[in-house]
Amino acid sequence: MQAFTIFGGTGDLTFRKLLPAFYNMVASGDSFSYQIVIIGRRPYTTEKYCEIARDWVKDFARLDYDEEKFQKLTSYIDYYHMDFTVQDDYSGLDAYYKKRDLKKHIFYFAVAPRFFSVIAHGLTKVENACHGKVIIEKPFGEDLASAHELNKQLESFFSPEGIFRIDHYLGKEMVRNIQTIRFSNPIFSNLWNSHYIECVQISAPEDLGIGTRGGYYDASGALRDMVQNHLFQILSIIAMEWPESPEKLFDAQIRVLRSLRPAKDVDIKNSLVLGQYEGYQNEKLVKPNSNTETFAALRLFIDNERWWGTPFYIRTGKKLSQREIKIAIIFRTSFLQKAAPNILIIKVQPSEGVYLQFNIKKPGDTDDIVQAKMDFSQSDCINRLNTPEAYERLLKACMNDNRSWFSRWEQIELCWKYINELVEKFHAANLPVAKYAPGSQGPKESDNLLEAAGHKWI
Amino acid sequence: MQAFTIFGGTGDLTFRKLLPAFYNMVASGDSFSYQIVIIGRRPYTTEKYCEIARDWVKDFARLDYDEEKFQKLTSYIDYYHMDFTVQDDYSGLDAYYKKRDLKKHIFYFAVAPRFFSVIAHGLTKVENACHGKVIIEKPFGEDLASAHELNKQLESFFSPEGIFRIDHYLGKEMVRNIQTIRFSNPIFSNLWNSHYIECVQISAPEDLGIGTRGGYYDASGALRDMVQNHLFQILSIIAMEWPESPEKLFDAQIRVLRSLRPAKDVDIKNSLVLGQYEGYQNEKLVKPNSNTETFAALRLFIDNERWWGTPFYIRTGKKLSQREIKIAIIFRTSFLQKAAPNILIIKVQPSEGVYLQFNIKKPGDTDDIVQAKMDFSQSDCINRLNTPEAYERLLKACMNDNRSWFSRWEQIELCWKYINELVEKFHAANLPVAKYAPGSQGPKESDNLLEAAGHKWI
Repeated sequence: MQAFTIFGGTGDLTFRKLLPAFYNMVASGDSFSYQIVIIGRRPYTTEKYCEIARDWVKDFARLDYDEEKFQKLTSYIDYYHMDFTVQDDYSGLDAYYKKRDLKKHIFYFAVAPRFFSVIAHGLTKVENACHGKVIIEKPFGEDLASAHELNKQLESFFSPEGIFRIDHYLGKEMVRNIQTIRFSNPIFSNLWNSHYIECVQISAPEDLGIGTRGGYYDASGALRDMVQNHLFQILSIIAMEWPESPEKLFDAQIRVLRSLRPAKDVDIKNSLVLGQYEGYQNEKLVKPNSNTETFAALRLFIDNERWWGTPFYIRTGKKLSQREIKIAIIFRTSFLQKAAPNILIIKVQPSEGVYLQFNIKKPGDTDDIVQAKMDFSQSDCINRLNTPEAYERLLKACMNDNRSWFSRWEQIELCWKYINELVEKFHAANLPVAKYAPGSQGPKESDNLLEAAGHKWI
Repeated sequence: MQAFTIFGGTGDLTFRKLLPAFYNMVASGDSFSYQIVIIGRRPYTTEKYCEIARDWVKDFARLDYDEEKFQKLTSYIDYYHMDFTVQDDYSGLDAYYKKRDLKKHIFYFAVAPRFFSVIAHGLTKVENACHGKVIIEKPFGEDLASAHELNKQLESFFSPEGIFRIDHYLGKEMVRNIQTIRFSNPIFSNLWNSHYIECVQISAPEDLGIGTRGGYYDASGALRDMVQNHLFQILSIIAMEWPESPEKLFDAQIRVLRSLRPAKDVDIKNSLVLGQYEGYQNEKLVKPNSNTETFAALRLFIDNERWWGTPFYIRTGKKLSQREIKIAIIFRTSFLQKAAPNILIIKVQPSEGVYLQFNIKKPGDTDDIVQAKMDFSQSDCINRLNTPEAYERLLKACMNDNRSWFSRWEQIELCWKYINELVEKFHAANLPVAKYAPGSQGPKESDNLLEAAGHKWI
């Protein structure tokens, strides 16, 4: 038996994502050999905690609820009552592990990053903890300096191979599918470069506002919350060269990030648009005069042989007209002027699928050209039950020591630095954070990014 | 008013195709300015003829039957009773046209080709007939020599621009669509050559036998009935260079036909398979020891810069397991060995559509590759009522002097010669016409054509 210890065991992430993921693992009959140790400040018994957990599992697990299977899950759970900010309590935790003969560890820091350090320090009192694995979540810090400091602390305690930085976008089915779609389909792979691709668009609008996360969000903003991690992950997988093996995925991604046209060389007005939805400053826990962006749109260039001249557009924001994550590859148009471009669309969420827009003859007695759509909707075609959720997949990957789908520090640092430089240039140019109406497509300035090249958001 | 005169007005083609096409034109409200003159040997009145026509129109017109619209159609129809083999009767026809002030002519020879000459000769008695247009149907003769002779006779009477040789495959929606699919979609057009295309397959199996057409069919066979006209049309449209204008379509097609690897240079055993279904010799009007092929499969090479090395496979036959016309473009596989090839399928009939087979990641916690299909089914998506039938479209094209969708003699002659040379070589090599079971995929020898290159029929 190994220990899987969750700090922050009464928090949202644990209830919404981690416990349902564990339930799915147990319920789908996978062999399971972890003692799940829930660390919480509230004075629950294990029974009480499991009672609370039941409804969350019912609501959030992808597999149907089954009382027997849930009971099986609870047999792996132990609620351990402690305040993880109190260093003295860690000796008790050590004793607990010893009593249970739990010598191998995975720690999940499901807490705000400001607590990472105090927990890591406490764990020095736990035998073998430093040889274990730790899973941490974004944000990895509040700014590049604090992230760097945090990383140093973690790396001084855990080995670099023991640190698993979750970017749950890497666990999403269709993000993992990008590589297969790109590299195993010659109709796409042979055309996957700036000779044939006019532009790439990555859109991740959200319809909701910031909800109760005002404190975190106001210190972070759209660029840090979405762009520099999730959307840069997607960007680099779309643009990378073929990684010779799964372990080389990062090297391939990092080569893309290093080839981003440096902030100093970009025309910042046509490279970055920030926006804030009307009413944001009245949200709970948001500073009254906050200038934090809830919307960001970017035009990026990857200055390498493959991508020279092809713009990559990214856009995300809160309180927009809809919620989805969608990647659009817009191919250059045919020599037949009246034909529309071929567009390959990869839908990541809420529905999963691949769409291809192409041209056909307008039916009937004419040679006019009209657009048609071919689609493969994964959500429709394949039993959803067979598609594990991102967290489930990533927890398993960590258990199996499969590091290829976690972020490396180098990548995080590169993205962070790049975004910082863009933002500095943005402010130096006195560019405004544009207001936009809730439910809209974001500030109209974001259309201007594309206009110069005659492009439009798909 | 112009005259549209049909010789063979009581035959199958007129009832099944021509009258329903005229009905569709009239019913869809197109302006219609033709007197339809039905020539027949049977002693019908116009009223009686229209009575008979009603049920055919009900059954075969694509537009719903409407009595008022049918009455409108009959107002254009005149039944003219004559024996078109009797030369003396043509003076009466001339008088009829004069009385009706019909000076401009379209003649449709909906009769066996052996009558073409006697009708053409008779028409010398009709004023202005030689300045009119004539529409003829395949077969254009019984062998190359007779076809050549027939063509000479027709061209001595009508001007070459007045002769419209119908290949109704050219009127099929998806055959006309091939050009648009190829040239207006860069994802296909950029890959449309032997570097990227592994092989092309054109399949036109039929489930029915020869029915009552034994006399015609036994003298013709699958090669002449289907391959040298219809399927070579499709082949040449798939393989041709971009025709700069619709009028240049033929030039482009003919350049392909001229580049076919000459029969003398092919390995005939691996280039042509002929078959005959079991029981064919017992069919009505078939010679008891007939060696006529009811099945043909070919492997062809187009020895030009674009297609060097890519085989084109063609197959058609009677009494096979199903009826369809399907074009499959099989792209070369990816460097990822486990990926299946991308396949573009254009379905011509009975359903119309475009399908693309591609690779995706197998959903779930795996990086395995599986095949998925995207499809655009024109039959489903677009109101069928809006798609004119092939004959309707071709009649209109002839009325509008749009010659680009009719066959030229040069093309017919080239195809005929090429097929003749293949067949001569086939017989010289003492290759057998293989028997096959009704309802099967044809003789298994047809698989051998593809085997050498590791290909399989789709």
